Amino acid sequence: MDVFVLFSGGKDSSLSAILLEPFFDVTLVTCNFGFAETWGTAGTVASELGFQHRVMQIDGAILEAAYEMAINDGYPNRAINHLHACALECVASGHAIIADGTRRDDRVPMLKLPDVQRLEDTRKCTYTRPLLGYGRCAVDALVDIHLKIEENESEKIEKSDYEVELRAIIEERHGPEMVRTIFPGRHLQSRVIGRKTAPRLRSYAMMGD
Amino acid sequence: MDVFVLFSGGKDSSLSAILLEPFFDVTLVTCNFGFAETWGTAGTVASELGFQHRVMQIDGAILEAAYEMAINDGYPNRAINHLHACALECVASGHAIIADGTRRDDRVPMLKLPDVQRLEDTRKCTYTRPLLGYGRCAVDALVDIHLKIEENESEKIEKSDYEVELRAIIEERHGPEMVRTIFPGRHLQSRVIGRKTAPRLRSYAMMGD
Repeated sequence: MDVFVLFSGGKDSSLSAILLEPFFDVTLVTCNFGFAETWGTAGTVASELGFQHRVMQIDGAILEAAYEMAINDGYPNRAINHLHACALECVASGHAIIADGTRRDDRVPMLKLPDVQRLEDTRKCTYTRPLLGYGRCAVDALVDIHLKIEENESEKIEKSDYEVELRAIIEERHGPEMVRTIFPGRHLQSRVIGRKTAPRLRSYAMMGD
Repeated sequence: MDVFVLFSGGKDSSLSAILLEPFFDVTLVTCNFGFAETWGTAGTVASELGFQHRVMQIDGAILEAAYEMAINDGYPNRAINHLHACALECVASGHAIIADGTRRDDRVPMLKLPDVQRLEDTRKCTYTRPLLGYGRCAVDALVDIHLKIEENESEKIEKSDYEVELRAIIEERHGPEMVRTIFPGRHLQSRVIGRKTAPRLRSYAMMGD
């Protein structure tokens, strides 16, 4: 079975793909709204992890709507949820099984159960969230086993998540101070730089190749 | 990392164990409240699936409390939730990482997020639910790939879940009609009778042995 995993290049979507790998044929998909070329980091990480990777171009009007939400709210959560929900709908339109890196303790992005059911019913897809049953401790333990991570201050890390384009459009129109106002208190960020394949998984991969 | 999976011998806890298998050392644990020897089916299924299996004896006062709930409510959901929550607490007391077969669409048993956080904080454990991010379609597809299933009417299937002892104690004290009153509308039930190991997983297992 094929699964298409929404992929930012971050820890959570990387770990989600690794948990799916023994059971599905995994392709990573990075969505882009046409404002900035943000997919490079995700492509590099996907290659390091050994997964196929695609970029999906999504209507820029969705980013415009999210930009309006962020400016009106003075806070990014509703905007990021909107981008995530739209990205899921777009990926679901072409693929039967989709996934993402949503964790149990995430607040944003996070679809509520009725929205999950609406997505599955309207797009005739299956939406899976392999990390939804895992809390922070379990995710940290699995990340520590499977991924090589670099930590740094937020603005020095190149990422491919929705926030990058949202920050970029806000910065272009209102300057960097508005970005800091809308995205307060972001400190340490992490970047996946490779994979520590556990012995069992390496054995499995060798047999599969 | 060791994980201890609450195991009834049913589809969901079996699939949960299979999803954990590439990433954890899995031991299956069947809880028993001392009223009836219900663990035989789970032990047989665990053996068929190739997992270690233990039986954990739990204070019968917990079953008595659940029995009172079921009789008072005329409905089993609160009682089953109580048995499940207590079983999780007991297994968590001795083990760092525990898991179960709770699915996204389950109503019972299902811990709410504050109860999950309380369990983890008070027992210093990590509670994972590998199927929580999977809906019915995804679970059915994975079960179809990985498990051999037998379907039958409820009362003809031998199981090892909490319901068996709860039904047994109600039947002993009130007769079979009360059991049918409290557990209405249960029709087709399924039993795991073996494992269809996918080629990749078989390869992995061969290398691991």
